[in-house]
Amino acid sequence: MGRVTERRRVIRIRDGVVSERPDTLVAEEPLEIRLNGKPLAITMRTPGDDFALAAGFLVSEGVLGAADELRSIVYCAGATADGVNTYNVVDVSTAPGVVVPDITLERNVYTTSSCGLCGKASLDAVRTTARWPIADEADGAPPVRLTPELLARLPDRLRAAQRVFDRTGGLHAAALFTEDGDLVDVREDVGRHNAVDKLVGRALQDDGLPLSRSVLMVSGRASFELAQKAVMAGIPVLAAVSAPSSLAVDLAAETGLTLVGFLRGSSMNVYAGEHRVALRTAAATG
Amino acid sequence: MGRVTERRRVIRIRDGVVSERPDTLVAEEPLEIRLNGKPLAITMRTPGDDFALAAGFLVSEGVLGAADELRSIVYCAGATADGVNTYNVVDVSTAPGVVVPDITLERNVYTTSSCGLCGKASLDAVRTTARWPIADEADGAPPVRLTPELLARLPDRLRAAQRVFDRTGGLHAAALFTEDGDLVDVREDVGRHNAVDKLVGRALQDDGLPLSRSVLMVSGRASFELAQKAVMAGIPVLAAVSAPSSLAVDLAAETGLTLVGFLRGSSMNVYAGEHRVALRTAAATG
Repeated sequence: MGRVTERRRVIRIRDGVVSERPDTLVAEEPLEIRLNGKPLAITMRTPGDDFALAAGFLVSEGVLGAADELRSIVYCAGATADGVNTYNVVDVSTAPGVVVPDITLERNVYTTSSCGLCGKASLDAVRTTARWPIADEADGAPPVRLTPELLARLPDRLRAAQRVFDRTGGLHAAALFTEDGDLVDVREDVGRHNAVDKLVGRALQDDGLPLSRSVLMVSGRASFELAQKAVMAGIPVLAAVSAPSSLAVDLAAETGLTLVGFLRGSSMNVYAGEHRVALRTAAATG
Repeated sequence: MGRVTERRRVIRIRDGVVSERPDTLVAEEPLEIRLNGKPLAITMRTPGDDFALAAGFLVSEGVLGAADELRSIVYCAGATADGVNTYNVVDVSTAPGVVVPDITLERNVYTTSSCGLCGKASLDAVRTTARWPIADEADGAPPVRLTPELLARLPDRLRAAQRVFDRTGGLHAAALFTEDGDLVDVREDVGRHNAVDKLVGRALQDDGLPLSRSVLMVSGRASFELAQKAVMAGIPVLAAVSAPSSLAVDLAAETGLTLVGFLRGSSMNVYAGEHRVALRTAAATG
């Protein structure tokens, strides 16, 4: 293992000066995820935390929701010609009694209505497979409520926790914070969606789902896929350094997810779920 | 159509001052790509240039390589309950005589060797499906050769050509340049891979493949997937604003692709294929 980074020779050009030296790159390798022995998906990811990645992926897909639904996750080894384990295939076994949906059919939810694929269908698919409502009233606990000052501190804390980025400049990151702004966990990966799956999968393994008191912070943009992963893990707040897409905002508005974008310095945009952000100005009562 | 951007209400917080206003977001919608009527893939993309996206996707997958292999691309319409065309499903018909590989089997190239999935298998899959060698010697033409000064001008030209980014801050971009540094085409999309597919697909429609005298410039990072798309389109030079991954570098080195990363100001790193970069210093003879 230990392949989070790899060394390659590079030719550097700086203001016309050419030099050759070794460089540290972020590692990227395919990972095949199997469910009870059947191939399910291949993702290009940064090696490491592969079991968590597989578990989190299955949470996002609506297959897993609690630690006791998971029987085992193993690297599939020894079947190559030379018997070497490449550590790029993991098999997730579900516990007896867990109903495993036909993933192929499940995915065809998007494609069944012959030519009617649309953003609305994507939103409906998330809503119908989500296990937990993320509306605060659901569990009777006091609502998660964050000040803009607390949100403004998260990007620096995420950045400070990124270890591999400093060496390679090539990684996305995702982190979970408590509602008090304390860092719980951070993951880095060539794919932002993988980083989120790794966080969620680790939480599942610790039987910590739903993450109903957590804030998910991601580097870069907030796509529909990332909003979907937040909703499927029961996370009430998603904050991103850059812009959200229209469909991410629509999903947030429909499910009650708080979506914060362009979180930079003391500035931010709240696109949905503003009831969780403690605004002190009258103008905020939209 | 015209859904490249959408308007949503946003709450802005700037140094404690809260205001509410409409905001322009990049549009994200699912696109289902069908091949001769059979569902093949769904990608989350920014609407627009959908036919080019579908065509380019099929070039990347090794299905198409010339304009006359393409019979038609149409939006699949009228099959919803209310008869509305969502413009989110396209069907690509190949010309008579074109051998359409069983994509499902094709993809299983990655997964056949029971537990042997690895980066090497990914590299092999590209090498065996690529239609055109990207080594310069192949077509007898003088090799593409770029100065660092020319490369250094590309990011500003890419940025200047990005129209939607300025309004939303939420888009990736990809552009094709001539070997003289002139902009040929630029595409923006929520997914960088979609932007590249749109470029390549447009080139296919114009019967311009392989793009053997072109430079592909992308915002952000250079992943394996982007390097793969360059190779499949016969593009000899891939330049990225940020870091490449290890597997992108390996693919470039194996196929002869010139891979430039961290292209910023007058600085850049050349990770592979440095024979196409006109270096004037002795230190460059690696």
